Amino acid sequence: MPTELDGHTDHISQQFNNELNEIKTHLMEMGGLVEQQVENAVQAIIDADSGKADEVLESDHTINSMEISIDEECARILARRQPAASDLRLVISVTKAITDLERIGDEATKVAHQAIALAEDGAAPKGYVEIRHIGEQVSKMVHDSLDAFARLDVDQALTVVKADKRVDAEYATAMRALVTFMMEDPRSISRVLNVMWSLRSLERIGDHSRNIAQYVIYLVKGKDVRHTGLTEMVERFKSD
Amino acid sequence: MPTELDGHTDHISQQFNNELNEIKTHLMEMGGLVEQQVENAVQAIIDADSGKADEVLESDHTINSMEISIDEECARILARRQPAASDLRLVISVTKAITDLERIGDEATKVAHQAIALAEDGAAPKGYVEIRHIGEQVSKMVHDSLDAFARLDVDQALTVVKADKRVDAEYATAMRALVTFMMEDPRSISRVLNVMWSLRSLERIGDHSRNIAQYVIYLVKGKDVRHTGLTEMVERFKSD
Repeated sequence: MPTELDGHTDHISQQFNNELNEIKTHLMEMGGLVEQQVENAVQAIIDADSGKADEVLESDHTINSMEISIDEECARILARRQPAASDLRLVISVTKAITDLERIGDEATKVAHQAIALAEDGAAPKGYVEIRHIGEQVSKMVHDSLDAFARLDVDQALTVVKADKRVDAEYATAMRALVTFMMEDPRSISRVLNVMWSLRSLERIGDHSRNIAQYVIYLVKGKDVRHTGLTEMVERFKSD
Repeated sequence: MPTELDGHTDHISQQFNNELNEIKTHLMEMGGLVEQQVENAVQAIIDADSGKADEVLESDHTINSMEISIDEECARILARRQPAASDLRLVISVTKAITDLERIGDEATKVAHQAIALAEDGAAPKGYVEIRHIGEQVSKMVHDSLDAFARLDVDQALTVVKADKRVDAEYATAMRALVTFMMEDPRSISRVLNVMWSLRSLERIGDHSRNIAQYVIYLVKGKDVRHTGLTEMVERFKSD
């Protein structure tokens, strides 16, 4: 009875497709929340708004439980559906991407803690311009890496990898300036350190976004590019 | 022909077992190398030995390529063998553990970079005692988390999770002392920052080892404890 069998297969494969779409949807939901965390944490520093920082700390557990539940969904799909080829790569990429998202959330809570310390001190130290600037860039990287994931857009993934290089360079420059500033005004040391730790966390958020972008390339092209140089990546994978 | 079929099944399952053992062996090899990296990086700081720091930087690419090749092995097993239950949890845990190992390797190279900067400066600043002390503890954590993985030893995994709490507390104390020291002697700021960044990396290495220990609990008990408190973990999983 080939027709019935086909009907059955279609049915199973429809369910399977739904499950694959669902893990993608859940990844995007988690990503949206994490992106919001990063923006709020940066804003909390800039506005010396410890209430906003508290919000970031409070929603951390939601992100953590999203990570666990998406991971369980992925394990269930691996066990029951035995996905192959690009379906398998999707499940693997989602599992990896949520780990990075969870760590972005962690870094956002670290920034929130620094925001609270800075808000208590009152006065705005040096480095706020850099926090705003680098903060905006890494928020955009989080957003763009997820967008690239949703649309399977390798070119957009490559722009995230490029943006990370730029952020790393700006981070290094900002850190050098802050060291100089500390030396000139030792009374500011403690506050400037709060700014430095925040910048460090933002830089890490950039790294995690780059990781997510690299999973997009793995997902679409089947090639693991985590340790491939940017130039080679662009040459091989950029569409014309 | 049940006998032949059984023979075939045995054969397949023997091969499958070999493959599972192999990814575990490769994880242990990668872990051994990473552990060595951490020890060398700490020693490079303490001995102001930039040659040893260079060694750490040079072997980083070996760790990176081990990560990629083990990940490929895991994806191949998922695609061909369709593992279930504890076999599936093993493959998932190995995939996650190598990500943490790779990041431990990254942190070791960061420590090596700080060692090179410090060796150029010559004089030993404050904080070396703390680097040695915290360095020894996190090296042991890396070792013990892998040992727990190899022997599926939940109790040992729990001791790693506990050790991480202790390291976090000692790290916080060391950082406060270094801030005070910077304020008292602003000329030391730049060197003390090198020490601070190194301690930060060591603290992160502790976090990643704790992650690996938590995968051991997941692997053996089937329960994801990444966001479970230590007390609850001990109550639920410690053997009597």
